[in-house]
Amino acid sequence: MTSTSLLPFDKSRSAFVFIEFQAEWLAPNSRLFQHLVQDKEPFQHAVSQAAVLLAAARQQACHIAHAGLDLRHDPSYRLFAGGQQVLGLRAAIPQVGTWTGPGADFVAPFVPQPGEFVVQGRSGASVLKNSTLDPFLRNNRIDTIYLCGFATHVCVESSLRDAHDSGLNVHVVKDACAAFTRAQDAYFHEHILHHFGTGIDVATLVQQLQA
Amino acid sequence: MTSTSLLPFDKSRSAFVFIEFQAEWLAPNSRLFQHLVQDKEPFQHAVSQAAVLLAAARQQACHIAHAGLDLRHDPSYRLFAGGQQVLGLRAAIPQVGTWTGPGADFVAPFVPQPGEFVVQGRSGASVLKNSTLDPFLRNNRIDTIYLCGFATHVCVESSLRDAHDSGLNVHVVKDACAAFTRAQDAYFHEHILHHFGTGIDVATLVQQLQA
Amino acid sequence: MTSTSLLPFDKSRSAFVFIEFQAEWLAPNSRLFQHLVQDKEPFQHAVSQAAVLLAAARQQACHIAHAGLDLRHDPSYRLFAGGQQVLGLRAAIPQVGTWTGPGADFVAPFVPQPGEFVVQGRSGASVLKNSTLDPFLRNNRIDTIYLCGFATHVCVESSLRDAHDSGLNVHVVKDACAAFTRAQDAYFHEHILHHFGTGIDVATLVQQLQA
Amino acid sequence: MTSTSLLPFDKSRSAFVFIEFQAEWLAPNSRLFQHLVQDKEPFQHAVSQAAVLLAAARQQACHIAHAGLDLRHDPSYRLFAGGQQVLGLRAAIPQVGTWTGPGADFVAPFVPQPGEFVVQGRSGASVLKNSTLDPFLRNNRIDTIYLCGFATHVCVESSLRDAHDSGLNVHVVKDACAAFTRAQDAYFHEHILHHFGTGIDVATLVQQLQA
Repeated sequence: MTSTSLLPFDKSRSAFVFIEFQAEWLAPNSRLFQHLVQDKEPFQHAVSQAAVLLAAARQQACHIAHAGLDLRHDPSYRLFAGGQQVLGLRAAIPQVGTWTGPGADFVAPFVPQPGEFVVQGRSGASVLKNSTLDPFLRNNRIDTIYLCGFATHVCVESSLRDAHDSGLNVHVVKDACAAFTRAQDAYFHEHILHHFGTGIDVATLVQQLQA
Repeated sequence: MTSTSLLPFDKSRSAFVFIEFQAEWLAPNSRLFQHLVQDKEPFQHAVSQAAVLLAAARQQACHIAHAGLDLRHDPSYRLFAGGQQVLGLRAAIPQVGTWTGPGADFVAPFVPQPGEFVVQGRSGASVLKNSTLDPFLRNNRIDTIYLCGFATHVCVESSLRDAHDSGLNVHVVKDACAAFTRAQDAYFHEHILHHFGTGIDVATLVQQLQA
Repeated sequence: MTSTSLLPFDKSRSAFVFIEFQAEWLAPNSRLFQHLVQDKEPFQHAVSQAAVLLAAARQQACHIAHAGLDLRHDPSYRLFAGGQQVLGLRAAIPQVGTWTGPGADFVAPFVPQPGEFVVQGRSGASVLKNSTLDPFLRNNRIDTIYLCGFATHVCVESSLRDAHDSGLNVHVVKDACAAFTRAQDAYFHEHILHHFGTGIDVATLVQQLQA
Repeated sequence: MTSTSLLPFDKSRSAFVFIEFQAEWLAPNSRLFQHLVQDKEPFQHAVSQAAVLLAAARQQACHIAHAGLDLRHDPSYRLFAGGQQVLGLRAAIPQVGTWTGPGADFVAPFVPQPGEFVVQGRSGASVLKNSTLDPFLRNNRIDTIYLCGFATHVCVESSLRDAHDSGLNVHVVKDACAAFTRAQDAYFHEHILHHFGTGIDVATLVQQLQA
């Protein structure tokens, strides 16, 4: 399915969701960037393209939501049972020790501005699951979201899949997301995305915004 | 149904959930206490009984979760669309202006201690809905919760109903909860509670904890 | 809050949800009607008023959803663990033995017609929880629901509370719902409803529909 | 993370979830098998391996859940707004016309037996989302699931991701699942699975079951 059958772009019904534009990924010496991100150039390109999109969205007074991960209030990872006897990210995050320190800081220009929504809660990879993002969207009568951020095949993809099943229309902003490798991004766009949503690039999206 | 058919009390599978022991309710001059709470004596009794329970739960190293409401990061109530064109608490909270200032402070002895879980997120009356409480319970293999707090017939009851439908066993700690009036508490215990859970009082519960 | 601050009635964004208009309640010799419903006249009045509303909604081609309970595929109540070691309705339903036989039949004129949505799933009192009602609403861009059915203070109220926290606007159709007693209905309308939604009666609603 | 840090296999806390063992996939002339499944041999191998697992699970009286898709009650796909102005599977399913006819039949030996749970509801790819699977697990105190079925990278993977974020431990039964191609299965196991759960094969699992 292509996006041509969708309603035309409607600013009031759309939100731009920025996933984990925080020091844990964006600081040059961060563990996630150093150890997980193998293809560093496309990752850095995604950061700068997301900044272009954010500036345009701010200029047009669009709905903007910042969906980070912040466990500074939970330094022993009680949410994840301390990483004991649980599988997946719930074990990996406590083991690596991320998101409980300054890595949870948002990095400029992605620091939330007044009037922008900062998502609270969240229990795993989907930024909609057990968080305030979904009721924010519902209360504001937003039915379409544009996803940017990291990593494409982990948190972005889980959010995409969750949003699809909830009844939202999702556009993944291709050049404003990055996986660990170029190949993972290519795989996502070829084999996964069309089952749950559609893709768009920053240039096209900014044009729509400014039309 | 009575609690006799349940499994015996098992500390590792139980959590004590303290709902909104914050200044917005507990400060003597707070708007909620002043304007909503009509029967002030049973409300104050509930606060002191909850303190008795909390002390016992801390002594026995039980799972403790603090489920407050804190919108200090969202002073324009974007979560609730600014209270515009939404019904219920989503409109009332922005109108009264609660939870975005010092009213969101936890009040001693209910200030979270290290190792106690502080619930993030939440979009309305149920402290489980769109929050991290449910995955905290699941990851820690907790299937039984004890609810204390305010107000019995609003947030405590919504949490009870939501938890029932999720598959949790819920005990409402009668003398550690309060509605606006004694009559509302009585109504809840006579007409509502048994459809969704069961009741217990602090003295009985502390005995179980210390057995 | 009054409904005057809401958007005007918009048929395309509204759904009429009929809760449990099934033989388990509506058959004169049914256990629920016989044993739970004490004030039989207002209950029967609610059934006939709901029929008036349904006819009008059908005539205007409104979105109609039938939210019943049907456990005929699960005669041993595995969903509720057979009623063992669970509290509330999950224990009561298996004990009474409802919803696994002909009591689950819809009763005329409330039998779903082609094009009307029949909710699947559901795990307790809220007709939105773990069911297809919410994604049906979302996919069809419906943000406002009108609730009718039984019982006011059990399933209707749980649905109201759940929908509020999800970000929907809820109107409870007063004279098309009934509790077990008149007093329970009165209590609900005085003490509970305004925290989560608003009320309307069939005559007013039919006028809006036909305007 | 490896499964060695998990609790040992506990039958009472585990469920075997069979995803879409229905004619829409399993009938030799079905559209999904004909058009989507490119590598037919591994798909057919997965069906026979799943049958081995199901027989062992039945012999040991394990918790078994059948998570199909069945839209025979909704032939105009109202759940998905008729596929209009929605993206992903919600548009593709109405376009292809699946799940509203005999393709929704379970195929032997995967036809649910008495005492086996048949999941109701579901709104997309995850078999947990808006369905009765999650409360079935919770009410029965099951915290670990084993996933089999189709397709690995669509519904199995969405279920895995959703279950992880809900707080469940998930084992994907490798040789009892299949994607459209061998390469997609290989990609899933190398790049995706460890973020959310772990893998096991039928032989190892049957040994654990019979130990």
